[in-house]
Amino acid sequence: MEIKDLHEWIEDLSRFDKARNLIPLLQKMPVVDVGIILQELDDEVLIELFPLFTRHQQGLIFAEFPITRQLRFFQHVSKRRFAPIFEYMPSDVRSDLYQHMSQQEQVALLPYLSKSIRENVISLSAYPPETAGGIMSTDFATVLANMSIEEAIAKVRSDSPSKKMVYYVYVVDNQMKLTGFITLKDLIMALPGQKVREIIHENFVYASVDEDRESVAFKIEKYDLVAIPIVNSQNQLLGIVTHDDAIEVIRAEHTEDLEKFMGIVPDKEDQAYLETSSIQHFKKRVVWVVSLAAVGILSGMIIHSYESTLEKLMILALYMPMVADTGGNAGSQAATVIVRALALGHITAANWLRVLWKEARISILIAFCLGVIAFAKVLFLSWETEIPESLNLTKIAFVISLALSLQVVTATVIGAGLPILVKRFGGDPAVAASPAITTVVDITGLLIYFTVATLFFTL
Amino acid sequence: MEIKDLHEWIEDLSRFDKARNLIPLLQKMPVVDVGIILQELDDEVLIELFPLFTRHQQGLIFAEFPITRQLRFFQHVSKRRFAPIFEYMPSDVRSDLYQHMSQQEQVALLPYLSKSIRENVISLSAYPPETAGGIMSTDFATVLANMSIEEAIAKVRSDSPSKKMVYYVYVVDNQMKLTGFITLKDLIMALPGQKVREIIHENFVYASVDEDRESVAFKIEKYDLVAIPIVNSQNQLLGIVTHDDAIEVIRAEHTEDLEKFMGIVPDKEDQAYLETSSIQHFKKRVVWVVSLAAVGILSGMIIHSYESTLEKLMILALYMPMVADTGGNAGSQAATVIVRALALGHITAANWLRVLWKEARISILIAFCLGVIAFAKVLFLSWETEIPESLNLTKIAFVISLALSLQVVTATVIGAGLPILVKRFGGDPAVAASPAITTVVDITGLLIYFTVATLFFTL
Repeated sequence: MEIKDLHEWIEDLSRFDKARNLIPLLQKMPVVDVGIILQELDDEVLIELFPLFTRHQQGLIFAEFPITRQLRFFQHVSKRRFAPIFEYMPSDVRSDLYQHMSQQEQVALLPYLSKSIRENVISLSAYPPETAGGIMSTDFATVLANMSIEEAIAKVRSDSPSKKMVYYVYVVDNQMKLTGFITLKDLIMALPGQKVREIIHENFVYASVDEDRESVAFKIEKYDLVAIPIVNSQNQLLGIVTHDDAIEVIRAEHTEDLEKFMGIVPDKEDQAYLETSSIQHFKKRVVWVVSLAAVGILSGMIIHSYESTLEKLMILALYMPMVADTGGNAGSQAATVIVRALALGHITAANWLRVLWKEARISILIAFCLGVIAFAKVLFLSWETEIPESLNLTKIAFVISLALSLQVVTATVIGAGLPILVKRFGGDPAVAASPAITTVVDITGLLIYFTVATLFFTL
Repeated sequence: MEIKDLHEWIEDLSRFDKARNLIPLLQKMPVVDVGIILQELDDEVLIELFPLFTRHQQGLIFAEFPITRQLRFFQHVSKRRFAPIFEYMPSDVRSDLYQHMSQQEQVALLPYLSKSIRENVISLSAYPPETAGGIMSTDFATVLANMSIEEAIAKVRSDSPSKKMVYYVYVVDNQMKLTGFITLKDLIMALPGQKVREIIHENFVYASVDEDRESVAFKIEKYDLVAIPIVNSQNQLLGIVTHDDAIEVIRAEHTEDLEKFMGIVPDKEDQAYLETSSIQHFKKRVVWVVSLAAVGILSGMIIHSYESTLEKLMILALYMPMVADTGGNAGSQAATVIVRALALGHITAANWLRVLWKEARISILIAFCLGVIAFAKVLFLSWETEIPESLNLTKIAFVISLALSLQVVTATVIGAGLPILVKRFGGDPAVAASPAITTVVDITGLLIYFTVATLFFTL
């Protein structure tokens, strides 16, 4: 990739005479980079180029294509030509692709697959994509406890002929029940004549096949695993989930959080922005902007109920937006911090009292700063604004900044409290972020604002 | 952990008579869980318990403690007792701890360390924590190209006596220059009599020691690596960064994004919420709420410049908050989507025109929905509000909802454009999120609102 840029590559590869000489170069490059280059080529060119790679390479390179590109290629080539590429894909990516095919396409492909692959694909794609089964691969090696080291090494050889990295070797009984694991290092360190059972690790972390994929990723992360074995209720080994899947899940989760934060309906398929139609984008976003607007009616009512007050003291109206905004900001900040702390396990719903008390203290500091600014603001902006003789600007400025300060404290505590509350009731704290907060504190803000005002001014 | 809960464990372990019998049980558990349990115990108890584990276990368990707990223990025990535990920690965690010690503490500890460890700690902690050097470990195995497979296996044995997992074996020349790598599987698969040079992989992904840790994590993720070699400018192998470090970096990055989104100043040290003082929290958050309030003065000025308009048509004032909020929400949403799409590489700054055009289309759909709602809102809420004879409520409702719709479109396009702009100029798009957007669109919102109003009503 460094040597020539993507476009040069595509250019050269599209000219078949040149392409041939480039293959050896490509074969030296990381398969990921080769995938990035080849996915840009036309299907016609790809069909010519693929056979120039080994079957293992073909499978691995094709697996690097984005699923949409994989489907396009599949739909374009004859099933007979496609089958071998498909067969050499990593089992997890392969079943993903299969799940994305239409039923007719699936039926059309199956006859061209070898029995073992066919069974593997069908069984793997039976698991829901959100579960361990949905992301696991079946590319693992197993040995029996009573094998000798030499037999075990031979078994590993036969189980993983491909270029794929082997992480752990799993020890199973003859019902495929998982009894432990050994590392390749154990195999190398073992003394000749030793048996597997002498070097086995019998305490291991595993996940069940119907476990949520996020909890699987969490285990991989917590225990710094390279791969985690996936078992069924009979404790039979069905597959493994590897560290790179964990990273993918964490990334997806990250996007989801951010989206929930902004009240965007997250879709499971992490689709590329430009490939998503405007209508889909619209659907994802409209939901809460609208519901927000709906709830906004409440704030509207509050404002109207104080209409007379506002007419008598017009200046109050001018500072309504300021109070609303500041509250929303302070609240969202608090929510962000708390949601994150909950996610990282730094706090639990049980801590709620300590947390709220801490947030209260923090917000008082912030409220003070903002109060002072608001006070200055009013004096500076409204010195010309006409106000009833009975009042003076300083008093009004004081009242407004007092209301604002109270609002900041309330908003912060609400912003911190809401996620914890949602968590308490088993929900995802992230949904109680920005949008929800803004709506709630808008209402409290106006109530505080007008209450304080009517307390200080006899209106 | 499953069998008894954390508190039972702590209870039992604190009673020394019981503790002794529990050690075998603990030794069977994953080191991570043992760490979680032991970190809760008093230092006195810990000092008694640690010697009951092997030195390797002691190092690994202690490494699982949070850094603050590690420091507390270190400050509490004699350096002589602490040194052996310290020596058996994984090299990367060890140098982290060392960096967190005061200079006096460092000087006090060094004499108790063996020469090799002392040198290792000092050299590792010389690298800034944000770089590959700052997170790399030196626990790796190397072989020479001209070694026989048997010699290589022997070398791996001697290089990695600990329980730690070995990922790749790196092939270096006698100046420690990295020339390639082999996997343990290659070693197992190799035929007797073969030489390392016959099975070496000479194309490998590496990172330089001063590379930003996020770019290292990105490489590990992109190439699905278990570990990546870290080299200096002379291409000499200095250490490795492993997949679990990558996950940590990605998590930290995740928090940072969220914080930037809410205008919280992210601190590099991902400190636990409750361990961070209120003052620190305050400092992290106040910066932009205040700057936001400051910029708010501008919106204040705009409002005041239309004071006369508002006096004549009080009803406009009642809907200022609605317009401000809606714009902020639409804008933040767009920003979230774009920042994420940029981060995932789904779009590039070069796409800006296509993106903005798409956002425009999306926003028109949203604007229409919100416009309708706003129209209904005004009719519903303000039917009693007194308005000049020259006008009728329907017209006012129309004007307000029109202004709101225009604001939604503008806000969305600004929300999408700002992050791209920041990216263009080499900044981090995330900083152009929520806070910034809200501020900017508040101002545009008011301008649109009053311009439309004065256009339709001769005020």
